[in-house]
Amino acid sequence: MWDHANQLFPICRSITGDGLRQTLGHLKKVIPKIEIKGIPSGQKIFDWTIPDEWNPKNAYMIGPDGEKIANFHENNLHLVSYSVPMHKRMSLSDLQSHLHSIVEKPDLIPYRTSYYKRDWGFCLPHRTRQNLKDGIYEIYIDSEIKPGVLNYGELLIPGQTEKEIMFSTYPCHPSLANDSLSGVVIALALAKNLMNRNDLYHSFRFLWTPETIGSLAWLDSNIGRAKEVIQAGFVLTCLGDDGPLSYMPSRKGKTLADRVITKMLYDNNLAFDSYSFNQRGSDERQFCHPNVDLPFASLMRSIYGEYEEYHTSGDDMGLLSPAALQESFNLYFRIIEMLEKNRVYKPMTIGEPQLGKRNLYANLSDSTLDEDEMVRFKILGYADGELDLISLSEIVDEPFDVVSSQVQILVDAQVLELVK
Amino acid sequence: MWDHANQLFPICRSITGDGLRQTLGHLKKVIPKIEIKGIPSGQKIFDWTIPDEWNPKNAYMIGPDGEKIANFHENNLHLVSYSVPMHKRMSLSDLQSHLHSIVEKPDLIPYRTSYYKRDWGFCLPHRTRQNLKDGIYEIYIDSEIKPGVLNYGELLIPGQTEKEIMFSTYPCHPSLANDSLSGVVIALALAKNLMNRNDLYHSFRFLWTPETIGSLAWLDSNIGRAKEVIQAGFVLTCLGDDGPLSYMPSRKGKTLADRVITKMLYDNNLAFDSYSFNQRGSDERQFCHPNVDLPFASLMRSIYGEYEEYHTSGDDMGLLSPAALQESFNLYFRIIEMLEKNRVYKPMTIGEPQLGKRNLYANLSDSTLDEDEMVRFKILGYADGELDLISLSEIVDEPFDVVSSQVQILVDAQVLELVK
Amino acid sequence: MWDHANQLFPICRSITGDGLRQTLGHLKKVIPKIEIKGIPSGQKIFDWTIPDEWNPKNAYMIGPDGEKIANFHENNLHLVSYSVPMHKRMSLSDLQSHLHSIVEKPDLIPYRTSYYKRDWGFCLPHRTRQNLKDGIYEIYIDSEIKPGVLNYGELLIPGQTEKEIMFSTYPCHPSLANDSLSGVVIALALAKNLMNRNDLYHSFRFLWTPETIGSLAWLDSNIGRAKEVIQAGFVLTCLGDDGPLSYMPSRKGKTLADRVITKMLYDNNLAFDSYSFNQRGSDERQFCHPNVDLPFASLMRSIYGEYEEYHTSGDDMGLLSPAALQESFNLYFRIIEMLEKNRVYKPMTIGEPQLGKRNLYANLSDSTLDEDEMVRFKILGYADGELDLISLSEIVDEPFDVVSSQVQILVDAQVLELVK
Repeated sequence: MWDHANQLFPICRSITGDGLRQTLGHLKKVIPKIEIKGIPSGQKIFDWTIPDEWNPKNAYMIGPDGEKIANFHENNLHLVSYSVPMHKRMSLSDLQSHLHSIVEKPDLIPYRTSYYKRDWGFCLPHRTRQNLKDGIYEIYIDSEIKPGVLNYGELLIPGQTEKEIMFSTYPCHPSLANDSLSGVVIALALAKNLMNRNDLYHSFRFLWTPETIGSLAWLDSNIGRAKEVIQAGFVLTCLGDDGPLSYMPSRKGKTLADRVITKMLYDNNLAFDSYSFNQRGSDERQFCHPNVDLPFASLMRSIYGEYEEYHTSGDDMGLLSPAALQESFNLYFRIIEMLEKNRVYKPMTIGEPQLGKRNLYANLSDSTLDEDEMVRFKILGYADGELDLISLSEIVDEPFDVVSSQVQILVDAQVLELVK
Repeated sequence: MWDHANQLFPICRSITGDGLRQTLGHLKKVIPKIEIKGIPSGQKIFDWTIPDEWNPKNAYMIGPDGEKIANFHENNLHLVSYSVPMHKRMSLSDLQSHLHSIVEKPDLIPYRTSYYKRDWGFCLPHRTRQNLKDGIYEIYIDSEIKPGVLNYGELLIPGQTEKEIMFSTYPCHPSLANDSLSGVVIALALAKNLMNRNDLYHSFRFLWTPETIGSLAWLDSNIGRAKEVIQAGFVLTCLGDDGPLSYMPSRKGKTLADRVITKMLYDNNLAFDSYSFNQRGSDERQFCHPNVDLPFASLMRSIYGEYEEYHTSGDDMGLLSPAALQESFNLYFRIIEMLEKNRVYKPMTIGEPQLGKRNLYANLSDSTLDEDEMVRFKILGYADGELDLISLSEIVDEPFDVVSSQVQILVDAQVLELVK
Repeated sequence: MWDHANQLFPICRSITGDGLRQTLGHLKKVIPKIEIKGIPSGQKIFDWTIPDEWNPKNAYMIGPDGEKIANFHENNLHLVSYSVPMHKRMSLSDLQSHLHSIVEKPDLIPYRTSYYKRDWGFCLPHRTRQNLKDGIYEIYIDSEIKPGVLNYGELLIPGQTEKEIMFSTYPCHPSLANDSLSGVVIALALAKNLMNRNDLYHSFRFLWTPETIGSLAWLDSNIGRAKEVIQAGFVLTCLGDDGPLSYMPSRKGKTLADRVITKMLYDNNLAFDSYSFNQRGSDERQFCHPNVDLPFASLMRSIYGEYEEYHTSGDDMGLLSPAALQESFNLYFRIIEMLEKNRVYKPMTIGEPQLGKRNLYANLSDSTLDEDEMVRFKILGYADGELDLISLSEIVDEPFDVVSSQVQILVDAQVLELVK
């Protein structure tokens, strides 16, 4: 993940264009089964329209003293995304309305876009901006905006059933590491891992699609089936820094996605900050929209909007660590394991089964049960053909994994049976 | 309101009779559309019977020293309501069982009635009673009890729909100001205000009817339709003093009447005391009766039974203030405004709408939303065609008025639409 | 109860055999209508099989110095229940795997059984065990295991309806007093009391049956009808010591059995420890099994497993007291009284009834209600044809008995009527 992130970081991505294609191409090299789709500019997507494609090649300003400023080749955040081509000279005062900086973060370049209104601009550290001298500036933007396609990558890993678990992430940001890119590479690693398995109960769908317009484009073609088959979905982003764990619930808050995230965190004794859906900020905005209503939630580290470097040049590879990426991967891996095992069981007996004859219970009573016996005893009290394993492990107050393995023993002993 | 209250205060009202008619006549002078109904004595009303009409003209006692005591013309509370006519002489000791006073409130005349059992009596301050000399007292009560009618006033202000909001108040107490009269004049002022409007969504019904027997009489003729059309109802009383706000819930506690009262108080940061339906004391006893079950609740100031002057001569115009009446009016006015706007909306889009093209969102991203944008963002996450505006504003944790005005902007922009 | 317990204590009971029959015979002498049933060994009971019958006659060990050890006639706990017959000599080291003691309770003989696997063994205080000398021991067990029957006692006391309240208890432990025997004698006393009444609304069923296999045997024949008629059931055990009250809920936790126990405790201001169904330990394991799902809960004193003497020779008659048995009886007696009165009522009027004409309300208003009037007032606000008396008394926050007697007054006055 760390290597992929390092290779992908420098590319200037946007919601369309060569940078996006190059990124998706990189993913496809790792997993050739990823399909790259393209939706033509101008196509209607619900309330939206696929925009023209944008391809930046170069951009900078030259100041009164001849120095190059806001050089796109030094940092692609310097150029407002979707800036139109431009070559002209203008005074600093005329230029000001096209400059963007953040007073409170004077050393960071902000990230700005203008996808749906033709505009142009440069982003730079506020300290740099303040030191700009009066005079005439040469503005140079070599970019192209013309009809093309919006691309996204999609991968379906079939399991034994059509029931789907879905992961969505957005490879549409330029050189930003934690927001966007961390999710892109973790999705890649999770997919790669699942590709190697032939025991999957669920089918797994991965989506690498531009935020908002890209997820809507996918929904436009898939919403009907998605509502039938998706059991739980997750937006992968903000997973690479060392910040606290953050949980963004679904709109309704009690979907399987919510339940598995919170149970996993609880079982692992992991502290986390819980947010409100009012604070949502990524593609759960589309997947949980009242008229879409898919069971999506999100587990992140430092959540979008809440960390100092968010949407600035500070969100670079220095913010990420291989260890944090790996831990995030591990957490989602546990979520997958739990979902795969999250079935419903019912008793095969009326009244308690006779465990002694199955060697699951000491034949000589001594009034105390060992740990496994105790967990099985609690399970047998509640497994009723309605509670799934997540609910069952909550009600017996034992870790999911412990309950799951003891349930398997009880199934093997023919005292519990799988319902669904 | 203050002037009306001053004019109405001296009248000796009861659940029937000239004082009640005079009061209703006063209201009809202000709003000629108020209809005065009359139900004849003897008519069966559910478990009750309309009593004979009572009309007191004069009453007093003359003591051993010739002094007039408990003079009805000085304070109509001196005479027990529904006292039969009487002119005789009796010793103080024989008289005692017909005298009423309150030991703990020695300077106040209590308010007593004997509607359904023929009786007579005088009420007086305990201090006066203690100073009565032994000897013979002349008792004089000039009153009339004979078949007549029970009157009530009713006003329907039609709106665009048959859905009704109802206000009930009881003009059946003699000279008591906060209990009873404050509600009578606030209902009058609210009705007058609503009469001047032609944009009402709901129809508004006002009822000035004697407590218990009068509200039952109205229910007897109207319960069927009432259960179909009434969305929320309020008993107006105890609204004129400077006491704390008091909330009396409906029996079930979560009707629209309850929700609008509590949300209005919350939005306005108003502290209030919350009571149990076990402590009910006015016509919510009838409107929320298990076999009636209308959505009635009540917002009061010092609640009946809980203030020192309740049901005594201390509950006079000195307890009221124009400012308190006005503030109570304002609170119910806000409740009406909220109810009028409390509609249900759903998204017109699948997925988020594109707000930028509607100038409802900055086209150049800068990661921060202004306040209005943030409220609209939160609304769009939850407006689902099921939540009414009260619930919606609770879930987005914003004031109702703020949500309501932003919803209107979203409706105008054709991203939300009215469901019901 | 105390006398019965003293007479029954010395008998060596097990889940089958003469000791069990002798115990049931004792009960039948007190209440001849108790039916003694017998299920033959080898019969399939759900997942179980009725075991062969076990009858111990004598058992002891003779040590190297000729002293008798672990003499069955001194304490029947010395012999592991269902020990096979045996007469042989063996060294102490070979013997050790057949000896049972508790390190932490060196002066107490543990209670051990081996119902379903042929085995033998002796239980003794750990202190005694430690002092055993090396050498050869003579082992003598005179017992018989052969096909027979499993017995249980059952009593139905018919009431006016087929709706049943059930009490189950287990007379299958050897000389243990609080666990097992306390429940046996309290069930006997409750049954005797109910036999003398001819006003019972519910039918009452009492079961004295061996734990687990015995209750399953009863369920095997009765589960269908039981699910139709049983309104509430209780497992009677651990009721004779001076420990704190303990409440074991049903699996789902809100059955009538749970509600009546907790309301009775609340009304009587009794502190109690509340356990989880995860900690269940007696026949609620069968009655509340997910595939059985009867409304059983249990009120105990020191709960099984939680008191020092549990399943040891310390649980003898010295642990019990007549006063504790009587108090436990009284608590269940109150539960029965509450269940008998726990009916549903609805108003006979629309709107409040006129209580004055029924002499249930002062005809001369004085604004204050006496206690009974206040309770009736609260009842009339909530009795709606749906709440049973337990729920009604919770919602008006009055003791069940107070509500019940005031409801009866309102029924007599024809303002409330019985619904079911």
